[in-house]
Amino acid sequence: MITVALAKGALLKDSVARFAKAGLDFSSILDPKNRLLMVPSSCGRARALLVRNGDVPVYVAYGQAQLGIVGFDVLNEKQMPVANLMDLGFGGCRMSVAVKETSGYKSAVELPHHCRVASKFTGCARRFFDDIDLPVELVHLTGSVELGPLTGIAEAIVDLVATGQTLRENGLVEIEELFYSTARLIGHPLSLRLDDGLIQNVIETLQSQKYSSSET
Amino acid sequence: MITVALAKGALLKDSVARFAKAGLDFSSILDPKNRLLMVPSSCGRARALLVRNGDVPVYVAYGQAQLGIVGFDVLNEKQMPVANLMDLGFGGCRMSVAVKETSGYKSAVELPHHCRVASKFTGCARRFFDDIDLPVELVHLTGSVELGPLTGIAEAIVDLVATGQTLRENGLVEIEELFYSTARLIGHPLSLRLDDGLIQNVIETLQSQKYSSSET
Repeated sequence: MITVALAKGALLKDSVARFAKAGLDFSSILDPKNRLLMVPSSCGRARALLVRNGDVPVYVAYGQAQLGIVGFDVLNEKQMPVANLMDLGFGGCRMSVAVKETSGYKSAVELPHHCRVASKFTGCARRFFDDIDLPVELVHLTGSVELGPLTGIAEAIVDLVATGQTLRENGLVEIEELFYSTARLIGHPLSLRLDDGLIQNVIETLQSQKYSSSET
Repeated sequence: MITVALAKGALLKDSVARFAKAGLDFSSILDPKNRLLMVPSSCGRARALLVRNGDVPVYVAYGQAQLGIVGFDVLNEKQMPVANLMDLGFGGCRMSVAVKETSGYKSAVELPHHCRVASKFTGCARRFFDDIDLPVELVHLTGSVELGPLTGIAEAIVDLVATGQTLRENGLVEIEELFYSTARLIGHPLSLRLDDGLIQNVIETLQSQKYSSSET
């Protein structure tokens, strides 16, 4: 029995589609009426845990799920001991520094020393500003980070940007990209070592799709 | 101009009602079509910031909002430097330890040493288990904590319980209450000291309601 951890939200539909091609059908999870958080595959050989984005690497790190699909943004933020097995290519977005359009800043190094930067991803932000050797005060917010510069709680934000619409609606502009994030297949290291072929088989099927699939 | 931080979700309706009685009408925030995160009061003397639960004490601690309404659970977890001004009485729920009904544990001290406990509130959980001198490994989850004991990632959870329905649906049972949480009015300490009477006026009106209001 394989358990896979799937993230609620934007990555779910593509995640289910990928596993379906690898022979594990969790499509009942997409039914709007589904209230189950533990969903068996139609073949009975596997089950999916439907959890929040940030919890996918936790369930995989503790071995409660042998495989999981989660955005690179979360992996980078959480730094959990999981095997990063494959870039699945979908769910692309940028982790970016953004400021008020009227601020005049054109790049992150122009930000004033000891200014405040709001983010849900304070781990990623800390490593980025350490790398460019700019001392900033990070303000951890859990949502609506675009409010930061508008209220004055922060001069800049570090946040995920997909289409850029939220930034534009709030008069903000990207000035630097930390990294590009896509969905990743992750695995529990010990389960991979003890695997009798079942997990490897799923991974290889997902790997072969990667080069044959046209979806992104 | 007073800025108040209001939490999205369960506390919002009562929070808006309380401020309305104090003369600050933010009822447009309750309009399902409202997409604004910064909402002026109808009198123009104030504005509300509509933010996530955990961000209310952050906006108040940094002085971007002079007042805010948030659950005691969040205040206890975040431990931000804000003034805890008043217990507003609504939004009652328990922060509790829960285990599988079949586990047989009847109180928290019966849990095995070094067992795993999953929670969104790892700060509250850490202080509680330190107080009872029980060494446990905390697993931080961001949602659906009730999955913890079912998947085996944790023997117990620490979570908010209102009606207890989620616990029952998942075969879990409360064995100990850490504290009872209600909505609190919080303030930015420096703004309160520098106040020319405007903020104090709102606080006093809210205080007088407390003893005249029958709503909970």
